[in-house]
Formats: sequence, structure tokens, C-alpha cells
Amino acid sequence: MHLIAIGGSDAGISAALRARELNPDVDVTVVVADAYPNFSICGIPYYFSGEVQPWQSLAHRTAADLEATGMRLRLDTFATGIDVTGQRLTVRDAHGAESQLAYDELVVGTGALPSAAGITGLDTLGPDDGVHVLHSMGDTFALDQHLNDRNPESAIIIGAGYVGLEMAEALTVRGLKVTQLQRGPEVLSTLDPELGALVHAELDRHDVEVVTGSRVEAVTRSPAGLTVTGHRNGAPFQHTADLVLAVVGVRPNTELLESAGATLSAGRAVLVDEQMRTGLPHVFAAGDGVVTHHRLLGRTYLPLGTTAHKQGRVAGENALGGDARFAGSLGTQVVKVFDLVAARTGLRDHEAAAAGFSPSSVTAVADDHKAYYPGATPISIRITGNADDGRLLGAQLVGSRSAEVAKRVDTFATALFHNMTVAGISDLDLSYTPPLGSPWDAVQVATQRWDREHTKAQVPA
Amino acid sequence: MHLIAIGGSDAGISAALRARELNPDVDVTVVVADAYPNFSICGIPYYFSGEVQPWQSLAHRTAADLEATGMRLRLDTFATGIDVTGQRLTVRDAHGAESQLAYDELVVGTGALPSAAGITGLDTLGPDDGVHVLHSMGDTFALDQHLNDRNPESAIIIGAGYVGLEMAEALTVRGLKVTQLQRGPEVLSTLDPELGALVHAELDRHDVEVVTGSRVEAVTRSPAGLTVTGHRNGAPFQHTADLVLAVVGVRPNTELLESAGATLSAGRAVLVDEQMRTGLPHVFAAGDGVVTHHRLLGRTYLPLGTTAHKQGRVAGENALGGDARFAGSLGTQVVKVFDLVAARTGLRDHEAAAAGFSPSSVTAVADDHKAYYPGATPISIRITGNADDGRLLGAQLVGSRSAEVAKRVDTFATALFHNMTVAGISDLDLSYTPPLGSPWDAVQVATQRWDREHTKAQVPA
Repeated sequence: MHLIAIGGSDAGISAALRARELNPDVDVTVVVADAYPNFSICGIPYYFSGEVQPWQSLAHRTAADLEATGMRLRLDTFATGIDVTGQRLTVRDAHGAESQLAYDELVVGTGALPSAAGITGLDTLGPDDGVHVLHSMGDTFALDQHLNDRNPESAIIIGAGYVGLEMAEALTVRGLKVTQLQRGPEVLSTLDPELGALVHAELDRHDVEVVTGSRVEAVTRSPAGLTVTGHRNGAPFQHTADLVLAVVGVRPNTELLESAGATLSAGRAVLVDEQMRTGLPHVFAAGDGVVTHHRLLGRTYLPLGTTAHKQGRVAGENALGGDARFAGSLGTQVVKVFDLVAARTGLRDHEAAAAGFSPSSVTAVADDHKAYYPGATPISIRITGNADDGRLLGAQLVGSRSAEVAKRVDTFATALFHNMTVAGISDLDLSYTPPLGSPWDAVQVATQRWDREHTKAQVPA
Repeated sequence: MHLIAIGGSDAGISAALRARELNPDVDVTVVVADAYPNFSICGIPYYFSGEVQPWQSLAHRTAADLEATGMRLRLDTFATGIDVTGQRLTVRDAHGAESQLAYDELVVGTGALPSAAGITGLDTLGPDDGVHVLHSMGDTFALDQHLNDRNPESAIIIGAGYVGLEMAEALTVRGLKVTQLQRGPEVLSTLDPELGALVHAELDRHDVEVVTGSRVEAVTRSPAGLTVTGHRNGAPFQHTADLVLAVVGVRPNTELLESAGATLSAGRAVLVDEQMRTGLPHVFAAGDGVVTHHRLLGRTYLPLGTTAHKQGRVAGENALGGDARFAGSLGTQVVKVFDLVAARTGLRDHEAAAAGFSPSSVTAVADDHKAYYPGATPISIRITGNADDGRLLGAQLVGSRSAEVAKRVDTFATALFHNMTVAGISDLDLSYTPPLGSPWDAVQVATQRWDREHTKAQVPA
């Protein structure tokens, strides 16, 4: 039995690890396009901030660690074609030599690629011009070289999502003057603007120049530097800096599977079932290249490292004949921006309404622990519930780094997993000690607020 | 409609607040034995450490806050008798004058009293002798006066449970030399000794002298100070200090309800159903004086502030004709001891076995966040699962204060609430960012360890 996993990131490695864990007799080969298997792409911003050094420590596991589990790594090896019927994978090595690898089962985890979001110039300008993306260790080395060799003083970051915000912090810490251009009305568009504004204020406090409502159209190079042009409120704008970093999202990298005959979704992610089967015999797929089963939305596309780990694990188990199922995402996410932490799980109003719910959201502000104990700090918690039946649909939280926001969102994620009602959260036996919480935790203060407002609305005055 | 709640602590106040919230037309009176309604008894140790000042800030809400909700407070008023048939409560004021209050519904939240655990001298010696308990604001003032007036240099704390540990920290911070005597083999006997030992080590690091296995038999007063005597490993011991604090647990304070004809459990807590009804018409009871419905154990006695809040809320709602149910405790608890946090939820092996499960426990050590990011710190997580069917039964966690242990136990508590399996925890969509977690959170690293060990055991070699 020979299992091949394509992709050295979360999905491919998780599949390979799971297979080796379940059956040490299975041959496992992982085909990795670069020389950096199992690197923590989410950690790259902290390399640039200087918090993580050297870059090698970004590896979740070293190549030696991986090989010690009994898997074989083929590094700098690019998968170019799948012969589904013949169960053979064609690969090209660093020297351009092609060869074929026979497999019994295949797990494809080719991930995603940076999107250019239709911005002119992102296709032609590159690291040598001072225009960067950040999706691989190769991108990391290119940006690193730029920063070290050319010592830029200013940067424009296009995009204010997770990576954009983390890089705004990193480059600011590093001494660059950062301008952050965001298309939407507020940064961190995965949160409602009311909560995104708290993150915006944190960027302001650290002298990041944030320009929301900026539709970037082009990046051009001139002797003065790099110029980003576009429109804002109907008027043209331009910003110039020494460096441009475009972090405007990703698109599924599906060429290999598409050529092999896999079916793509509307968003061009590969269709898979809950067992991570592509429909092609003996071919599984997982991670940022495939559709995401969402527990509240059904089929969507929501590429996240946590999801890729889970899907890869399921694929690895099923490739060995198992019957594991990906239980579905809730879109749980968290980001640290300077001294603030922002998190969400589940749905926001517009997402829930589009899915046929009757959502209603209420924001509460509750202290992370008893106000009398030193260091208490407010957490803004926005609860989305279904007005019809009181079902919890989602939660968004923003608070200081000390406020244990990341784990409080996990309580909501666990509650959502079990389809709890908003009112039901008060039944949870959560922990309490004055330095770390309240008899009704902030989580419950927020859900009680939602419940009170909606119960009131049901009782005629 | 007149609702009377007896007790100014969590249960009574919660019942009163809930009633006023649900129906502002209901008359609500709270009968409070002392002058300190709604004080945070859990916060008292932080008053002694100096972190909370003045003592007035220990109030969850001030008397004025409470009265602003429309409830009436009768302070320094002791409830002496219930005329169940006549629906009248007899009370005695601070001057010894008795009067009667008519009620339509009654919620009794008389709580618990400090236990003497059969130790000779605790019944006769008191604050004037330098022997203290710590269960009320009166006890707090007595200990405070002792510390200020007599400036003791050494203290013996009998008991190493939550309050004992917090007071060991507080008195150490205050400069006293603390000796802590614990009957059991390890401190914090609510955890398995393997994890309790981590707390013991933290006490050692802060020069608290911990003596486990100490069966205290008597406290006596002599010119040299206070002497605690007993046996340890079959041999007699004695310790002398300027001050003795006995924190060896509580017993339900049920005299009032017992006299009124309520039924007591074997442990002498008042029997109530899930609606907090005592069986006496129009008489509800909640909090530390009543039995606790535990989701895994059924009926038990587990006095906790969080539970008292929930039960009081249920009683207040049902007293108004509602149909709320106390969903049950999982015994979720957390304590901070110096720079360590220890938490638990659900059952440990011996508790689970006594309840008819086939428990098995495994301890894993997992970093609170990615090791490459500064400040990563290990959390010891002990998972108890049912070997028969893989059901999660409990979790114990010990980690540093920065490790977000208190909220991680909440994820386990929420999972337990829904009867999840240990393996099922891997399906939870928990949050991840390198400074605050891992792609598989520490919670999942621990459950995967348990699962791996138990799956392995099922496969013949």
C-alpha cells in the first residue's frame, strides 16, 4: 500500500501523519513543491516583526521529524499530472526531470495561490520591483532580502485582512511607515464594522495610516518608488512608498485536479464530499484547494489552516480505508493586532440572512474578569442569534490581549457545534475565579443581553 | 405578588434580580443576615493580598445598585422561622425585635457555614484568640483587624483547597511565613495528585511550607502562640504560629428549612428538584444549602458560586410561575495560585468509577501557543474518558497564568455538557493564531493523546 500526499503544508502533511499513525506498515510519500515542508505560514508575520528567529523555527516539524515518522519526503518536486486510471502521478524535480510515481491512494493538498484581485501591475511587478505577496517561504525570503538589502522606509499594504493586519504590525515594529489600504468600509471585514472599528483604532494608536474605502486599481513603478492608484469615494487617489505588499486573499490552486477531471465548484474550488473524496477513484483532496463544508452554511469556500489540518486528517484516515468525516467548519478565526485580539465564529447577520435565517445581533461589553481585581479589561462581544427560535448563529469578540478572547470564542464555537440556543449558554457550567472571570462569564453576560432584548421584544408593553 | 428571598449572597440576590428582570411589577424583598448584600466572597483573598482595596469594592453591586432594580433590602435581619401554611416569615432585626413578613413565594438561599472538620478548639477559640475562618465579611473584618492590630509574623492555614491556597498566597504576599497543613496526600485534592503536585511546587517556589498528610486534631492557645497538633504518618506533630486560619470546607446551613419541614439529603443539604422546589408549597431553595444536580453524577453536594447564581436565577423565574430548570453542574472550577492556574471540569477516575463508568485517564503536556512565538508555556492536561465508549468524562488542567487555562477548561465544560466523546473534540472548530494557540489546540492535543492510547489498546499487536 502506497499513499502519496501532494503538498507540504497543512492538508498534505496532516494526511501523511494520520496515515502513518494509523498504520505504520503503509508507505507514505509526500511530494513538496519547495524545500520547506510543514512550515507555519501563519507564523511568517512574526518572523518579520523579529519575534521569531531564525526562519527555520517556523517549521511545525523539521524534515527530520517528519521522516522519523516513517514518511518519505520528495522536496522541490512539482506534481504535474495525475493518471487517474493508471494510478500514477507525474512529477518534475528541481532539475526539470520528469518521473512517474505509482500510488494506491492519493491525497491532493495543493492549497491556494495569492489573488491579484484584478489589480493591474501585480501580474508584472515582482519582488525585484519591490512588490510582494506573502504565501510561501519563497515569498518570505524575497521580502526579507528586500528589507535587508534596500532598507525601505515606507510600505503600502493592500488589504486589511488577517495577514495584512499582522504585517502592518510587523513592518511598523520594524520601523517602516505603513499605509494600509482597505477596499471595504472598515478593516478586518470578517467582523461587523462596529467591531472592526476597534481594530482600526488600535492601528491608529500605533501610527499605521489606514485608508478604508480604497479601491486599488493599479501598482506602478517610477523612480520615486512604487505608486498605488485607485478610487476612493468616487475620487482618484494615489499613494507612494518604497515597498508594496498585496495581501488581498487567495484563490484555490486546482490546476492539477482540474486536469485530472475533478469537478470544480462555482468558486473554482474542487468539490469533495465529507470524506474528502473528489469522485475520482482513489483520489482525495483537502485544504485550501477544496470546498469547505460549513455546519451552518453547507458548501462554501473558507480556507483556514485549522480546517486544512482536519480535512487532511480525514483524508489520510479514509485513504487507508477508514470512514472518517469532516464535521464541518464554523469559520472560527482569531487574530492578534498589536495589543488587541479579534475573533469570530459562526455567522454574521448578512451571512445568516443569505442562508435563510432571521438573524439579529446585539453587542455587549463585559469585563474579562471581576472589575475589582487589577487588570480587568472590557471585551466587546457581538452575538448573532436567530430571532425566530433563539438559536445561536455566531459571535464576534474584540478585547485586549490579556482578555482570553481566543479561548472565549472557542466556547461559542463549541456551543455552535451543538446548535445551542442563545439562552442555553447560561446553562453552561463555565469556570470562575475573580482574577480570570465572573460568576456569569463575559460570554454569558453577552448572551443574556441578547436574550433580554429579544424576550422583551416578544412581550407586549 | 410578594417574593421574599432569604440570603444576600449569590443565590438569594440572583433570584431577586431575575424576578425583577422578568416582572417589574413583582414586589421583591431580600432578607440579609448582615449588612453586606451581594459581596463577592470569592474575592476576599485578594483583599488580604492588597490587590483589592477598599473592602467596599468587593461588592458585585452596592446596596444602592440593588435597590435601583426595585428590590427592597432588609439588612442585619435574620430569618428565624417559616410558617409554610400561613406563608409568613419570622425575622429578627439587629435590635432583637421579631416581626413577620407575608410572602406569596419564598426563595431560601441561606448558604453554608464553615466546617470545623472535627478539630478540637475550633469551636471554642475565635478571632480574639487568633483563630479564624473566612466565610463572611464579618470574618474578613475580624482577620483584617488581627493582621493590622497584632501584626502576626506567621500563620498556619489548615486546608489546601481553593480558599486555603488563595490565602496562602495572600498572607505570603503580605509578608507572613505561612505553613499549610493538608490532610490528603497532595494539595488541591480536587485534582489528581499528579497535577496537584504542580501547584505544590508553585507554593514551594514562594516559600509556603506545605505539609501534606497532616491530620489536624486540635488547636490550642498558649503564651507562645497558637499550636496545631495532630498526626502525620502515624507520628504526632505540632506547629506553632501567631495566627491560625481554618479553611477545611463547608456544611449546608439548613436549620431554617429543616425546622420548616424540608427534606434533607444524606449530607444534610436540602433536597430540591431541578426547578429548585423544596416540596414545601411556595418555598424554593438554591445555592450552597441545597443538593446539587450534577450532569454526570446525578444528585450530589458541590457548593460553588457559579452554581448558586444559576440555581438562584432558576428559583427566581419559577417563583414567578416560570418553568426554568437548573441544567446541572459539571463541577467546573478554577483557581489561581501565585503564577499558576489550575482548573477542572467533570469527573476524575475514582468519581467516575463510583458512578458506574469505566474511566481511564491520560495526561498530556501541550504548549499554550506555537513554541516558536515568544512566551509559549506548557499546559498539563489530564483527560478522563470512558474506556467502554470513548465518552469524555472530565478534564484537569494546570498551566501558567498566561496560558488561558480558565477558558480552555470552558471548552471541555461545554463539550461535557453535550456528552461528546474524547475523539469528537478533534471535530471542534477552535480558533488559531500562533501567539494564542496551535492548529490543533492544546485541548485537542490532549484528547488526541487519550484517543491514540485507547485506540492502540483495542488493536491486538
